Amino acid sequence: MKKIVVIGATGTLGQAVSEALKARHEVIEVGATRGQYQVDSTDPASVERLFRELGKVDGVVTATGKLHFGPLEQMSSEQFWVGLRDKLMGQINVVLAAQNYVNDGGSFTLTSGIVGDEPIREGANATTVNLALEGFVRGAAIELPRGIRINVVSPTVLTESMGAYGPYFRGFEPVSAQRAAQGYLRSVEGAQTGRVYRVGY
Amino acid sequence: MKKIVVIGATGTLGQAVSEALKARHEVIEVGATRGQYQVDSTDPASVERLFRELGKVDGVVTATGKLHFGPLEQMSSEQFWVGLRDKLMGQINVVLAAQNYVNDGGSFTLTSGIVGDEPIREGANATTVNLALEGFVRGAAIELPRGIRINVVSPTVLTESMGAYGPYFRGFEPVSAQRAAQGYLRSVEGAQTGRVYRVGY
Repeated sequence: MKKIVVIGATGTLGQAVSEALKARHEVIEVGATRGQYQVDSTDPASVERLFRELGKVDGVVTATGKLHFGPLEQMSSEQFWVGLRDKLMGQINVVLAAQNYVNDGGSFTLTSGIVGDEPIREGANATTVNLALEGFVRGAAIELPRGIRINVVSPTVLTESMGAYGPYFRGFEPVSAQRAAQGYLRSVEGAQTGRVYRVGY
Repeated sequence: MKKIVVIGATGTLGQAVSEALKARHEVIEVGATRGQYQVDSTDPASVERLFRELGKVDGVVTATGKLHFGPLEQMSSEQFWVGLRDKLMGQINVVLAAQNYVNDGGSFTLTSGIVGDEPIREGANATTVNLALEGFVRGAAIELPRGIRINVVSPTVLTESMGAYGPYFRGFEPVSAQRAAQGYLRSVEGAQTGRVYRVGY
């Protein structure tokens, strides 16, 4: 039994990941405004406070992050920053702050998404951020000390999100959050590092 | 003969790209503090002013950008922002602002680097930023209007940079800036879009 922190545990995907992990592990659920603990992952000081309070853990999962969707032709730099500040640096802030709080042989599991591999209209910010996260994991995997691993899960669009995002994803077969959660189990309970676990595509 | 703007034209790589393009094209050389024109590519207003002054062009090449190099264990969020603000958003700001100033069938050519594919110690920021740029190109390629193309050149380490960066790149075969410049010719004068042109690896 490991002690695993799930940041973004109140979202559709985070909830499913928490449920799947609870079968065998102690799970600490962290949300932005709900959950057992709260954190603003875009603020390094808030992330540091969270881990000072939690102490040592065996694994950290992040399933958070806003992106900007909109036509490239009208996209402003300020809109582009949304995904960089939130989905990208939100997850990187967690790794930078939490690396000292993860036990030997522990793990980080981040979240990217299919739009990194399969660009869609109005999705340039998402494709950029998702590949950036895969780059971060590739770079961090060779530097993390004490056998700490880091991977990223890239799920296809979730069945639960098709109501809002369906028109962007014609012809994509969605997966349930519960099925997407399996990718996180492979990362947390497996032995690989520097991997992108694609789920549902 | 095309009208090509090279941003970062006073750097080692930019100079070589400018020289190679001048054989067949009109080249406008833009630097941060030198060159025919100056721009601060981290500032969208500065980029907008540059293109308002230059008017319509057939191609834009960017070969700019600072990154942060340092051990992951001591990396702060603020240090990580260096590469996001400079090499990543500096180049994206250019595309967002210049897309209305590029003629039908014109092109953008950005610069990533081998550390996106081959992580090195102290290079997590570089790997992240380089893959982010490749993601941006992948996303933007399917949205740019009027046959405008976008590619990214990923050179290996330059011979000219081995003095400063050699210890990070043991076993990497460097290429001269002149040879790396060939990747930019393939992008500017070729017909593909959404491509990563790797040079020297």
